[in-house]
Amino acid sequence: MGKILVLYDSRGGNTAAMAQHVAEGAGQISGMEIRLRHVDEATIEDALWADGIGCGAPTQTGIASWKMKKYWDDIANPTWGQMDGKIGCAFSTSGGWGGGAELTCMSILTMMMNVGMLTFGVTDYTGQQFTLHYGAVSAGKPRTDAEIEAARRLGKRLAQWVATFIDGRTDQRPGPMKDRS
Amino acid sequence: MGKILVLYDSRGGNTAAMAQHVAEGAGQISGMEIRLRHVDEATIEDALWADGIGCGAPTQTGIASWKMKKYWDDIANPTWGQMDGKIGCAFSTSGGWGGGAELTCMSILTMMMNVGMLTFGVTDYTGQQFTLHYGAVSAGKPRTDAEIEAARRLGKRLAQWVATFIDGRTDQRPGPMKDRS
Amino acid sequence: MGKILVLYDSRGGNTAAMAQHVAEGAGQISGMEIRLRHVDEATIEDALWADGIGCGAPTQTGIASWKMKKYWDDIANPTWGQMDGKIGCAFSTSGGWGGGAELTCMSILTMMMNVGMLTFGVTDYTGQQFTLHYGAVSAGKPRTDAEIEAARRLGKRLAQWVATFIDGRTDQRPGPMKDRS
Amino acid sequence: MGKILVLYDSRGGNTAAMAQHVAEGAGQISGMEIRLRHVDEATIEDALWADGIGCGAPTQTGIASWKMKKYWDDIANPTWGQMDGKIGCAFSTSGGWGGGAELTCMSILTMMMNVGMLTFGVTDYTGQQFTLHYGAVSAGKPRTDAEIEAARRLGKRLAQWVATFIDGRTDQRPGPMKDRS
Repeated sequence: MGKILVLYDSRGGNTAAMAQHVAEGAGQISGMEIRLRHVDEATIEDALWADGIGCGAPTQTGIASWKMKKYWDDIANPTWGQMDGKIGCAFSTSGGWGGGAELTCMSILTMMMNVGMLTFGVTDYTGQQFTLHYGAVSAGKPRTDAEIEAARRLGKRLAQWVATFIDGRTDQRPGPMKDRS
Repeated sequence: MGKILVLYDSRGGNTAAMAQHVAEGAGQISGMEIRLRHVDEATIEDALWADGIGCGAPTQTGIASWKMKKYWDDIANPTWGQMDGKIGCAFSTSGGWGGGAELTCMSILTMMMNVGMLTFGVTDYTGQQFTLHYGAVSAGKPRTDAEIEAARRLGKRLAQWVATFIDGRTDQRPGPMKDRS
Repeated sequence: MGKILVLYDSRGGNTAAMAQHVAEGAGQISGMEIRLRHVDEATIEDALWADGIGCGAPTQTGIASWKMKKYWDDIANPTWGQMDGKIGCAFSTSGGWGGGAELTCMSILTMMMNVGMLTFGVTDYTGQQFTLHYGAVSAGKPRTDAEIEAARRLGKRLAQWVATFIDGRTDQRPGPMKDRS
Repeated sequence: MGKILVLYDSRGGNTAAMAQHVAEGAGQISGMEIRLRHVDEATIEDALWADGIGCGAPTQTGIASWKMKKYWDDIANPTWGQMDGKIGCAFSTSGGWGGGAELTCMSILTMMMNVGMLTFGVTDYTGQQFTLHYGAVSAGKPRTDAEIEAARRLGKRLAQWVATFIDGRTDQRPGPMKDRS
């Protein structure tokens, strides 16, 4: 039974909405136990419990919000060596396109790799000219089908990799991808 | 007389179109000499000549295209110490939103800082939920007013910083910015 | 049988030396088939063949060398959707500490994530104040025990993750890590 | 009269020591007013006051420490549009080489560019195989001549760019650099 933590910070609700979609996507894969946690309530135990973590934060000055930064700073030493081999991915909502959401995802992936996790993006396109190569992003709350599907696809892929790599299931490996949109 | 180099790579014409808009923006500031150069025709002398460089490349695997990478690799040693203090900014067009255009801009800014340049983004918003904090980006060819204006604003700001910092003009410093959209 | 590609570019031989150590490290895990390839001779087939890729390049302007960039640009489209789920890590040698080797590793990891790979760093320390959180790095040729061991540890960890995640072996998962040096 | 803010976070004193050296370097340029501020005591007014900011933080999970992140998150909105055109650079001390100090510097430069600042690294080498292309870095407290001089050179260069670009002085522009070590 794979364990998925969807961990997020949110100020106005945009990243919270995206986190909900990420959790929905993870739920599309059978046999997953899913925890959805705001960073204010997340504990060290949540991180240790998880096989896979989808982590999202508002884009603030191009890097994950300070609360999310503090979470990883706080857990890094106490969990050292115990996060190795967990699987992670990122998502972020920004004030505008070109505002740093991709860079914020990369800052989250940077924190994850530091503690030994394996990180990934998704090659699929979820709409015309819309993808999630470094995690799901949107300007403001995800509203369009492509934005919502990107968040769901991220969570689904996280669950697929956990099923395939951690649980050793052979039925969940994503098939060959389709054409690029 | 400020010297602006708009240096770009382009495969299908999208980044070329954006480069044209960047050059237009630079031309909005009086007293600027502007060179628009495809990377295939750009020389070391172009880089040495410029006070400010706006550099754009297609997003390819989240980093500037190899041709643009090769240009900076080629000029780094011969120009070492002579690029210090020039001013630089970045732009990129990608196959889709979330596809790495911001990261590609950051890869260009990384190359520029390596050779001693000062790099910047722009705080302005050019449309609803549209900005250029790490350079101008678009998915495909810039088409909307916000996308086109972002490219122009980038070029204009580059020229403004060159006028202010290199030419010592006091009439071109951007005024206090407006509200965030 | 896990398949490991150690792919590298090198100008003066420093990154080639490191690649050799990465391959040695991969060879410490039983049952691995290893290919060591200079970028000039690497083919698309090498990338498709591999379960895990350790990719190294000289630090040039803070980003992987243009030849390595060209390799990933060239294979990205023809392999689209077929690189998903492969495991990757990075290494780089620079002209000096503080010269961009970590950023170069991150540029390689950025390219790998773009095509769907899972990327990782290593939490272990291989000497006093020496680690490989984003891949193995050295200034010039790796010479000290810590530098050489970092490259080997990277290759070993790559093989361990391939054995664990791709081959489904239960005997190769890295144990709980030791104290941070 | 140029105004230089050296802003830092420090846990065990390593980054504080480096901040001291950065401030010393800035003091090598005549006519500079220098403020040295721990992030706990720094105010919004410090940021608004400064023409140039040297910002340092301990490397934690490859990104600036959460306290430094919080500082920039807190000031970003209230100062929006008023940080444009200030000049910035970064420094960091990590637990070990290869541990993320360069990436932490880049995270600081990312925050600075977000609010409109111009950021830079330094091309000079301060010892054999030792440089500061993305800011001054060290593993632990700076102890060697090359490490201490890197921090000083960073502060000096910051003051030189402020003198040249903001104060319009013609006597402080760094001369053509020497050979790469």
